[in-house]
Amino acid sequence: MHRGYRTLVTCAAAVEQRAVKPESEVPGMSAYLDSLRWNNDGLVAVIAQHVDTGEVLMQAYSDRNAICETLQTGLATFYSRSRRERWCKGETSGHFIKVSRVFADCDKDSIIYLGDPIGPACHTGAKTCWFSEAQVGDDGGVSTCGKHEHHAAHSPATTLYALERTIQQRRDEMGQQKEGKPSWTARLLADPVLLCKKVREEAGELCETLEAGEGAERAASEMADLLYHSMVLLNLQGVPMEDVMRVLRQRFGTSGIEEKAARPPKQ
Amino acid sequence: MHRGYRTLVTCAAAVEQRAVKPESEVPGMSAYLDSLRWNNDGLVAVIAQHVDTGEVLMQAYSDRNAICETLQTGLATFYSRSRRERWCKGETSGHFIKVSRVFADCDKDSIIYLGDPIGPACHTGAKTCWFSEAQVGDDGGVSTCGKHEHHAAHSPATTLYALERTIQQRRDEMGQQKEGKPSWTARLLADPVLLCKKVREEAGELCETLEAGEGAERAASEMADLLYHSMVLLNLQGVPMEDVMRVLRQRFGTSGIEEKAARPPKQ
Repeated sequence: MHRGYRTLVTCAAAVEQRAVKPESEVPGMSAYLDSLRWNNDGLVAVIAQHVDTGEVLMQAYSDRNAICETLQTGLATFYSRSRRERWCKGETSGHFIKVSRVFADCDKDSIIYLGDPIGPACHTGAKTCWFSEAQVGDDGGVSTCGKHEHHAAHSPATTLYALERTIQQRRDEMGQQKEGKPSWTARLLADPVLLCKKVREEAGELCETLEAGEGAERAASEMADLLYHSMVLLNLQGVPMEDVMRVLRQRFGTSGIEEKAARPPKQ
Repeated sequence: MHRGYRTLVTCAAAVEQRAVKPESEVPGMSAYLDSLRWNNDGLVAVIAQHVDTGEVLMQAYSDRNAICETLQTGLATFYSRSRRERWCKGETSGHFIKVSRVFADCDKDSIIYLGDPIGPACHTGAKTCWFSEAQVGDDGGVSTCGKHEHHAAHSPATTLYALERTIQQRRDEMGQQKEGKPSWTARLLADPVLLCKKVREEAGELCETLEAGEGAERAASEMADLLYHSMVLLNLQGVPMEDVMRVLRQRFGTSGIEEKAARPPKQ
């Protein structure tokens, strides 16, 4: 909590302190903005993506000023089509998205802000704006599932995070009486000694793929085993993979736009 | 290669065989399409995302028919604004995107197709459409970097894949004379015995966080260590994390729209 609060205050202070220059005063800015392909309303589509988890956080639109501002402040800024005005995400809610890198697509009309969100990205309080899933039944019929309260169940989880959800589901079911044999995940969750034995074993088997030259396919398979068993072990300790990714970024990450913008101005 | 080819043939055959029904003949389809918020041109923005890596593959627009078709065929279909026609991605190039899940955002005007791409998603041959990065210099000046040939260097890598690139970079530099001490990654890459020793050690240390109750922060840190060292070991064997994710999905994944659409019709 403390970390989040401090970051938030830093961000709010940063917004006030960071004087945003018009594009003409920033070297190369007009040329960059000219290279983008603006629609009839002077906008490009912008996708904000979580730098650690890859989650698509929100999708909105930006005009020249919004892109110009984002590149200077390192805070995700858009153009609100409904309010017809500049919109720095988080300025009222505190839920900024700190942008480290900005990319344009092959036809220059779609932008990615790669960043680190402070709090939920969606105005509903959900982590991302996608929590409503079209479900196709066995008869091909279509229905909709998902409310923002159930974001975790009906948002687009990529493989690693889908596995994390499955492990959590097994854990949630542990108290319940279920027929038949418990799943392997449930057995591991119930038996920390077995779990630790497996993690050590799987690490050994991964090493053996290199030591014995067992080939790439076998190595991928053993890594999958090690990752799965380690994630069960993390679940028992309440550690989400997102936290592991944050640690990796802090160790190996290069500094981005946000970090540059936050530096004190040169004297 | 064989796997890719087989999948492609399967997809092409599937397109021909899958009769797409009009929305009125699919239970719930019209209600679902009515729930989306179409712009003045009758379109919604659509983001195609890689189910394993989380990469944003492409961003385009869909009309009612394109969403209706995607939900039935499990193949990413859009509306081409330039050609003013239906556009099933891959129909001419063979580079389909197999869609497993479809999501709408909180205001129902932005869609995510979560899927598995067959080959490159971009028409340039790049893996995704984002390979052009806005670079901010130390003076705040802006320039653009990246061509499709250099996709791997200037596309939005999230933390795990950015780390993977860093490891590969260290490996690429190994032949070169460099001043000063080699990086830890370079030392590990050059010494498989040390590397395997470290992977086994880190697995042990991760287990100890549970055995000795060392707390969540320590567990996240040890998992980061294990992941990093394992990824160096995978690099030595030419195994990308994407392959590991594919193995995990094949083991733990639930079937999606594409799988349902590919089932033979009931007699």
